Amino acid sequence: MDKPKPGRGQNSVQLRRYNERLLLQTLRRLGEASKADLARKTKLTNTAVGSIINALDEARLIEYGGRRMEGRGQPSTLIRLNPKGAFGVGVRIDRESIETALIDFDGAILARRQHNRALPPPDEALHLVCADIEAVLAVLSPGERKRLAGVGLAQPYNLGAWLTQLGLTDPAFQAWDKAEFAHDLSKATGLAVFGENDGNAAAIAELFYGCGREFDDFLYLFLGPVIGCGIALEGDCLRGVSGNAGDIAVMPVLPGSLPSSPRSAGKWDLLLSRASLNALSRHLRHAGESVETHAALARLVGAGHPAVNEWLDDCIDALAPALQSALCMLDVPRVIIDADIDNGLIDALMRKLALALADITPEARHPPQLLRGSFGADAGAIGAASLPMFFSFSPR
Amino acid sequence: MDKPKPGRGQNSVQLRRYNERLLLQTLRRLGEASKADLARKTKLTNTAVGSIINALDEARLIEYGGRRMEGRGQPSTLIRLNPKGAFGVGVRIDRESIETALIDFDGAILARRQHNRALPPPDEALHLVCADIEAVLAVLSPGERKRLAGVGLAQPYNLGAWLTQLGLTDPAFQAWDKAEFAHDLSKATGLAVFGENDGNAAAIAELFYGCGREFDDFLYLFLGPVIGCGIALEGDCLRGVSGNAGDIAVMPVLPGSLPSSPRSAGKWDLLLSRASLNALSRHLRHAGESVETHAALARLVGAGHPAVNEWLDDCIDALAPALQSALCMLDVPRVIIDADIDNGLIDALMRKLALALADITPEARHPPQLLRGSFGADAGAIGAASLPMFFSFSPR
Repeated sequence: MDKPKPGRGQNSVQLRRYNERLLLQTLRRLGEASKADLARKTKLTNTAVGSIINALDEARLIEYGGRRMEGRGQPSTLIRLNPKGAFGVGVRIDRESIETALIDFDGAILARRQHNRALPPPDEALHLVCADIEAVLAVLSPGERKRLAGVGLAQPYNLGAWLTQLGLTDPAFQAWDKAEFAHDLSKATGLAVFGENDGNAAAIAELFYGCGREFDDFLYLFLGPVIGCGIALEGDCLRGVSGNAGDIAVMPVLPGSLPSSPRSAGKWDLLLSRASLNALSRHLRHAGESVETHAALARLVGAGHPAVNEWLDDCIDALAPALQSALCMLDVPRVIIDADIDNGLIDALMRKLALALADITPEARHPPQLLRGSFGADAGAIGAASLPMFFSFSPR
Repeated sequence: MDKPKPGRGQNSVQLRRYNERLLLQTLRRLGEASKADLARKTKLTNTAVGSIINALDEARLIEYGGRRMEGRGQPSTLIRLNPKGAFGVGVRIDRESIETALIDFDGAILARRQHNRALPPPDEALHLVCADIEAVLAVLSPGERKRLAGVGLAQPYNLGAWLTQLGLTDPAFQAWDKAEFAHDLSKATGLAVFGENDGNAAAIAELFYGCGREFDDFLYLFLGPVIGCGIALEGDCLRGVSGNAGDIAVMPVLPGSLPSSPRSAGKWDLLLSRASLNALSRHLRHAGESVETHAALARLVGAGHPAVNEWLDDCIDALAPALQSALCMLDVPRVIIDADIDNGLIDALMRKLALALADITPEARHPPQLLRGSFGADAGAIGAASLPMFFSFSPR
């Protein structure tokens, strides 16, 4: 069942749905399993497992694989998820790009469309996204299309805020603060739309398709134009009362010490003005480089431009105490780190962050384990497309 | 039922237990209610409510009160919790006191014992606490004693750590880091012992008996010798993977600027060395005052000693960004503030904190609502005694 809403009683229909989703999760984690494996793992009775498996088979969510000999008895049939059992569309909107992707039940990307451009006003974006959704859905057969779980929409909340700190000037972003894009997209396409902020969406992709196959509790960081964050607790995503939990980007930090750092009005600045690819671009521009495109930025990172290292030190100097504060609150033992650009950046970031965290970890506490994210630049698209999967098929 | 453990199927026994606890919670919040009120509020069927009410009546957890006319039909009987339906013992261990209290199902303190002294070694403390438990239980009749839900044990984790920052020198505390006091106490008394860190325990008291009657999501702060914190999310307490969620005391903050502030080895200090009554005592001693006892400290606070205000400014200067960081992570709309000492301190703290938070809240976000805690200096004892109540009778 869905996590009990405060004050709401639970009934046997919800119980059944919870157990169904639990079996799907167990299969996602194990890859292949017999009914006996599933009963053992979930502590459900063999009868309950048998009945649920029949229902999942009818819904085409699972398929039967090979057989495995067990002791002296009959060989047992192995069950696995059917990759074509469900599909999800993801739409990721950012200040500088729009991306639409179709994934299958295994998380593989089947089709995608991408526009690298400053975000247009909401109604223009709606036309663009509707056309992209039609385009990616064209790869499905009519039968498969019936198994579309819905559309996930991932976007930074408050697209119109913090423009100064991000070095952006286009006032058109502010129209997005009033837009109800998820609602409009659902109306225009006739499909269910699941909205989340982009940090949560990418964390949900890790939870459903990445490190979450192994771990239930982690903090997820994504270094993109801004820094995104999501929190996995007991296998679920912490949303917060207004959907903004894990809002690490606006944590207070000391102003940066780079010559390119913006003057801060007060004693404190926001983490996003130091730990973000926007801050890196700003520092590279200050060093005389042109960084008009994502590819240009990736190239400068790959070439080991000295300004990249300068920025990285300033980024870590802000990120380490902010992350340490987050870990104090959440008490999760690991942090998953991913970024929009690699070319050695993620490794360098993890190496320096590990040192800084070891330094700042208080007596009687342990620094977290740092793990690499699973999807890199695809985290946004897969994150968005994971939303309908997660909300429809995860026990929560 | 208990919150589903990751990977564990749910059955109808757990479903029933969840719904029972939900009815108890609804009664705790409403005070009095008819069966029809309960069905409406919990979205359970009338039949389910009737059957659960019968079971709760048999367990003596509820009682029937007056009748209320509803429209033209029969008057409905009102149901309420039976204050004598369950009892809980709380033991709160701190670096400078040991407190034992007995509460009833309404949260009223029926008996208590207190020792204001430096914490003795674990085995000596065990004898003391066992005698105190026997003493407080003596007020119950044999029938009532059968309805004892257990013993709650609240203590700061890592009693042996951060002694420098707290201005404590007794190395005897370090024996506590190895003690398994909850286990030993259970063995010595034959009672179920529920252990929590003191911040979580006091937050659970708020959740079960205080502001939680109205609110499901809040951050709870308690200014004691150290600063304690607990997190209520969706009506449950966030424990974290190692029971240390809400560990605000060890968040990194800049070193203090008071002449009494300890020299910090690095760039960062811990919040507890600025925002704690230990820090206040240290600053008062630096100003030439003697603060050997809790009463002496309370007197100096009440007299408006200028050093109190100096410390308060330094405390807020550290607390505001730490709290803001916590709120960014958790996305809860309110903070409940309580302290071991009042005499105007809580009001002054709340007033200054509200100003500092308004100043530090980023664009597009709102500062939290600040509320006064319900229990003041009793938060520790009631918090500890709430633990067996919460774990036995709260839907989670």
